[in-house]
Amino acid sequence: MLSNFNKAFKGWGTNEGLIVSILAHRNAAQRNLIRQVYAEAYGQDLLKDLDKELSNDFERVVMVWTLDPAERDAYLANEATKRFTSSNWVLMEIACSRSSHDLFKVRQAYHARYKKSLEEDVAYHTTGDFRKLLVPLVSAFRYEGEEVNTMLAKSEAKILHEKISDKAYSDDEIIRILTTRSKAQLNATLNHYNNAFGNAINMNLKEDADNEFLKLLRATIKCLTYPEKYFEKLLRLAIKKIGTDEWALTRVVATRAEVDMERIKEEYRRRNSVTLDHDIAGETAGDYERMLLALIGHGDA
Amino acid sequence: MLSNFNKAFKGWGTNEGLIVSILAHRNAAQRNLIRQVYAEAYGQDLLKDLDKELSNDFERVVMVWTLDPAERDAYLANEATKRFTSSNWVLMEIACSRSSHDLFKVRQAYHARYKKSLEEDVAYHTTGDFRKLLVPLVSAFRYEGEEVNTMLAKSEAKILHEKISDKAYSDDEIIRILTTRSKAQLNATLNHYNNAFGNAINMNLKEDADNEFLKLLRATIKCLTYPEKYFEKLLRLAIKKIGTDEWALTRVVATRAEVDMERIKEEYRRRNSVTLDHDIAGETAGDYERMLLALIGHGDA
Repeated sequence: MLSNFNKAFKGWGTNEGLIVSILAHRNAAQRNLIRQVYAEAYGQDLLKDLDKELSNDFERVVMVWTLDPAERDAYLANEATKRFTSSNWVLMEIACSRSSHDLFKVRQAYHARYKKSLEEDVAYHTTGDFRKLLVPLVSAFRYEGEEVNTMLAKSEAKILHEKISDKAYSDDEIIRILTTRSKAQLNATLNHYNNAFGNAINMNLKEDADNEFLKLLRATIKCLTYPEKYFEKLLRLAIKKIGTDEWALTRVVATRAEVDMERIKEEYRRRNSVTLDHDIAGETAGDYERMLLALIGHGDA
Repeated sequence: MLSNFNKAFKGWGTNEGLIVSILAHRNAAQRNLIRQVYAEAYGQDLLKDLDKELSNDFERVVMVWTLDPAERDAYLANEATKRFTSSNWVLMEIACSRSSHDLFKVRQAYHARYKKSLEEDVAYHTTGDFRKLLVPLVSAFRYEGEEVNTMLAKSEAKILHEKISDKAYSDDEIIRILTTRSKAQLNATLNHYNNAFGNAINMNLKEDADNEFLKLLRATIKCLTYPEKYFEKLLRLAIKKIGTDEWALTRVVATRAEVDMERIKEEYRRRNSVTLDHDIAGETAGDYERMLLALIGHGDA
């Protein structure tokens, strides 16, 4: 099936270079055109082929990118609940970095494709503290207004500090505050935390470097309040890793290209003193490299 | 403001009898017309007046009924999180008896009206086992297909039975199964429970009559699997109560009139050997009585 994908474009009188240059425009209508041509040529949806083994990084990034954003996230979330590809981080990332409406669209796409609910799979495939955090995160429909209740921010900063001081990291109240408050309110609460207790909350969550739940909690807070920093770090670790983590690279580039890639690139340059373009070009090659660079807007004015 | 409501209709050349007869048609377009006329005449939305003290049962049922269903549920849910009108049952009822899409519309209406999320208020105003059950219930977006996984139904029936045998009524697994599975899947699981263990699950949850959490858990199961029985019982208790519980009567009649009132009436007749019409006529009076009877379709063919 996947070789068909290449054939589809070849039969269509094109080649990888052209695919990259079309997709570089990052135009949703053109992506839908590709899906339509594919469906007409092979009588099935592109998304179906994602279930098969993917033979190379280029095909993978083209296909993930070509999907509608809600379907793409539903696919990534489903993979993240499966035994051999499970990832609490991917679930958290989808839940925390998408807008409330976009997350709801992911839940709708999940119903349509998997005949189950996202939260049902997340709850079934996780246990203990991870379940306690992830199920409300993926089920949330946070208020998105900018209104902030200062009294509440102060009282909840105090609650967070008390629980963290007691090392009760998975306490009901910590989970409640992080999973239900609007991002604006949470930001106010964490600013009060910093002001009142002299440390950013994530500093106080650092004491045990091997605690996987604590790591996820810190990443959750970062992803909710500074998504560009969260994604910069993911890219940095994926690129610097011996062998490069292509799947993380593909995921971050494909999901953020149309959203906040400019801010992520800016953050990357600040943190690493080189551009993301430079590092991607250094660690990847061929069509895959060209595709990633096109997606992050390499060479754009 | 509320006296304005009556004046609105009087100024409009009508009277209570006419309001009842218009609303008896249970037509959403006509209800919207009433809201529009009200808004034009008084420069504010009918819903705003719901926050004020309501002076009588007739006005209350007219206003609750006239609201758009999602706004009505958002209003009822918000009241149910407030200190003096708090009700875990109303929250559970809205979460469990509405369709997944309708529940999501309630969450959207909640954002628009209260500038907060429903789950945020529910989490903030509940604690312990009640929070643990209610937050995922109101956040759920259950799959609504009829597909059933029989293996899963058997294994989860067994889990439920083990936890209940250990009296671990608020165990994570019980909560997970009840709050995330589709209604069709849950029904299959509870049927297996009954077949394999010789009792309906609610029989095994009955041992402690004073345990409020157990009562809510039983009601949750009933509301998810036999909503007409759940509502029949609510109506029966509201009517038989010394003094009659008008607010419960108003809520059930206004929220179910357009949904499943025929089945609830049928269930009422089976369980009480008299009609719901008869009992409502016996326990209420005047315009309020006429309105309730009109809403439940009294005299319809």
